[in-house]
Amino acid sequence: MAKTVNIGVLGCGNVGAALVELLRLRADEIELRTDLRLQVAKVAVRSTSKERAVLLDPGVLTLDAHSVVTDPDIDLIVEVIGGIEPARELISLALASGKAVVTANKELLANIGTELFAEADEAGVDLLFEAAVAGGVPIVRPLRESLVGEDITRVMGIVNGTTNYILTKMTDEGWAYSAALAEAQGLGYAERDPTADVEGFDAGAKAAIIATIAFGVRVVAGDVYHEGISGVTQTDIEFARRLGYVVKLLAIAERFSDGTVAVRVHPAMVPNEHPLASVRDSFNAVFVQGAAVGDLMFYGRGAGGNPTASAVLGDVVDAAANLLKGTHASNGSFAKANLRPVDELVSPFYVNLEVSDEPGVLAAVAGVFGDHRVSIHSMEQEVLEEGVLEERVQEQQPNRGAARLIFITHAAREADVRATLHELSALDSVTSVGSVLRVIGTD
Amino acid sequence: MAKTVNIGVLGCGNVGAALVELLRLRADEIELRTDLRLQVAKVAVRSTSKERAVLLDPGVLTLDAHSVVTDPDIDLIVEVIGGIEPARELISLALASGKAVVTANKELLANIGTELFAEADEAGVDLLFEAAVAGGVPIVRPLRESLVGEDITRVMGIVNGTTNYILTKMTDEGWAYSAALAEAQGLGYAERDPTADVEGFDAGAKAAIIATIAFGVRVVAGDVYHEGISGVTQTDIEFARRLGYVVKLLAIAERFSDGTVAVRVHPAMVPNEHPLASVRDSFNAVFVQGAAVGDLMFYGRGAGGNPTASAVLGDVVDAAANLLKGTHASNGSFAKANLRPVDELVSPFYVNLEVSDEPGVLAAVAGVFGDHRVSIHSMEQEVLEEGVLEERVQEQQPNRGAARLIFITHAAREADVRATLHELSALDSVTSVGSVLRVIGTD
Repeated sequence: MAKTVNIGVLGCGNVGAALVELLRLRADEIELRTDLRLQVAKVAVRSTSKERAVLLDPGVLTLDAHSVVTDPDIDLIVEVIGGIEPARELISLALASGKAVVTANKELLANIGTELFAEADEAGVDLLFEAAVAGGVPIVRPLRESLVGEDITRVMGIVNGTTNYILTKMTDEGWAYSAALAEAQGLGYAERDPTADVEGFDAGAKAAIIATIAFGVRVVAGDVYHEGISGVTQTDIEFARRLGYVVKLLAIAERFSDGTVAVRVHPAMVPNEHPLASVRDSFNAVFVQGAAVGDLMFYGRGAGGNPTASAVLGDVVDAAANLLKGTHASNGSFAKANLRPVDELVSPFYVNLEVSDEPGVLAAVAGVFGDHRVSIHSMEQEVLEEGVLEERVQEQQPNRGAARLIFITHAAREADVRATLHELSALDSVTSVGSVLRVIGTD
Repeated sequence: MAKTVNIGVLGCGNVGAALVELLRLRADEIELRTDLRLQVAKVAVRSTSKERAVLLDPGVLTLDAHSVVTDPDIDLIVEVIGGIEPARELISLALASGKAVVTANKELLANIGTELFAEADEAGVDLLFEAAVAGGVPIVRPLRESLVGEDITRVMGIVNGTTNYILTKMTDEGWAYSAALAEAQGLGYAERDPTADVEGFDAGAKAAIIATIAFGVRVVAGDVYHEGISGVTQTDIEFARRLGYVVKLLAIAERFSDGTVAVRVHPAMVPNEHPLASVRDSFNAVFVQGAAVGDLMFYGRGAGGNPTASAVLGDVVDAAANLLKGTHASNGSFAKANLRPVDELVSPFYVNLEVSDEPGVLAAVAGVFGDHRVSIHSMEQEVLEEGVLEERVQEQQPNRGAARLIFITHAAREADVRATLHELSALDSVTSVGSVLRVIGTD
């Protein structure tokens, strides 16, 4: 005889509606496999529209989320409202009422995740959040459980589908950034104000959660250094291609042998043969490097109602089974991470300069690199046609031709590269310092 | 105060030795995170050599595996002997003695896995086996837990590193099959008798385990249709490249809407843009298609002491935590799968024919395809130089030139394609029927 677990769902947008439908479709099969009868008892919404009503029995919909999290007949709460408040307060109330909680809320977890973990442990219930990172891709559970014994040294993720879609269009179709962004907005992948995606805030929140669970230390969104993709040009994409790379927006979490941790988001040049290079369109992937296990990658749909609901459902089954066994899985306790500043990080760099095409310029530029202990791995020079720089040439440098210099450096400290760029931009012969991209995957 | 869990390890080859070392390195960190002290209490070996003795405290090594699985001080058994006996008997004894068991034994699980699952449930302990499929790649736990609510329709895996290494060398370096095999043997990837790898037996065992856990029905190794890669030629690889494909050995488990299941291993043409196409060298990857979650892929090291030991260790921590909570995770119960015969499967096919180069041949060949309701998607004809077929030409067909016809069919039933090939091989104008490869990833 299957045991019934009553579920309260907070929020019925894309993910909530997909979850309710998925539970309807899959409840019998789940019961067959697990002996658990999952039942949607209440769904809290902000307004009761007709479309939602047809999905649910009358009496299931409510406008009062508080009554759901305190209802003694409800065993488990799914939070898919998003944002900090009222999600935080509702989750805290649910945990304090002894209910297991499953959430997809990356913003909340990236800011006060470890506090919520402690509240769940205090209450002796599960707080699960597979869907908060990379949507439908199972990555939280593998990191927390499969790899709990592993010495994880680095995690690199393509965890924002919108920016990966934009970069894929720029790479495969030769589109400009603005055209690719407009297409992403037309398809509903990007918001009207795309800042959270394109400037790396969304990926940064996910990076904080990844670092926390991969390394067992507390990292919050504010700890994450981030740069977005709005400065990536077709020139960068084209040079990347010539050199055997693709440009991807990566969330990178690293732990060094001294125990310090660095977490950052920025566009990077990824070698074509790296598994992350072939992750295209709006797909997500998380690449994990461990001392014993070697390289792993987890790939799939990072967003969308159905994939996200699938991840939520996996957590719901797990939490429901634990409730009935009277057990729960602790997320552990977390000391504050000892963060290594981005200035001290080391990687090869791609540097794109426009210079005046005259004798001695390369020597001057190379000298600046050398003065800052940044060693050059390769250089390409391209003479720019007059037309390309027409305006600038007319206004400022009527008597000079122009050239583009593309450098790939050997591994260098960020601070040294910054100092190099600062000094280069002050040279008369350097007309502009274009994109600077870190190169990954070569070690 | 951490609770100590005493571990008995059966077997101390590559994986066993790596596990003992990994536990030594990681025990403190695991204790910090989980409050569990994992201790290797006994290691059963067939002979006590010096190399092993240095790794372990005196008194830990024993030649008597039975004494380990019945030792009341031991809580958890790790079985890394491999093969059916004595592994089966030792695992049964351990389970009956109330010990949790972690195994990496694909052969055992592919033959009597569901019987062992029942014994574990009877005893109320865990039987975990992440390392049995795709080595260090977390795939068993994601399938069993993260995707427990998902309607999984198909799983396609590159689950044999040896054959993937051979096919990669044939593709990237243009090597013949025999040269690539010899290199794999030299590197220790392939056995002196490579049959288990190259004829698909190893991948077949893993496919049976994958089908069992993905679909919740019992599939054993003997249920798996398999073809190997020993017949794949450089010609096939080259045509695949021209047509935009790579050749991979795939383990494919499918469930159809009528509830039937098909499980098979064979070389297949995979489109370049498919995520499985970029899985190179000895890496493994498992591609999962679900109704709600969409496409997922799990990528990593499928073999080797350290990656496999890492997967074993994840299971050990999980099982140890469950022991102390007095709970366990059931693998569920499994009805026998209702298998769909391979003859009834449908896919596009690549067919490589050598024919005499004379008027009317193509019409005759195309007529045979048509008679069997196999519709042609594309055809390429290549005139073969005299030299290529010199021997055959001299012996059998002195007056004819020769040509190669490469067909890609539309999706067709296996039985119809077999009948087509049978009739084609009887045509006078067809000098040989070469490789026949299924094409995947186009739907």
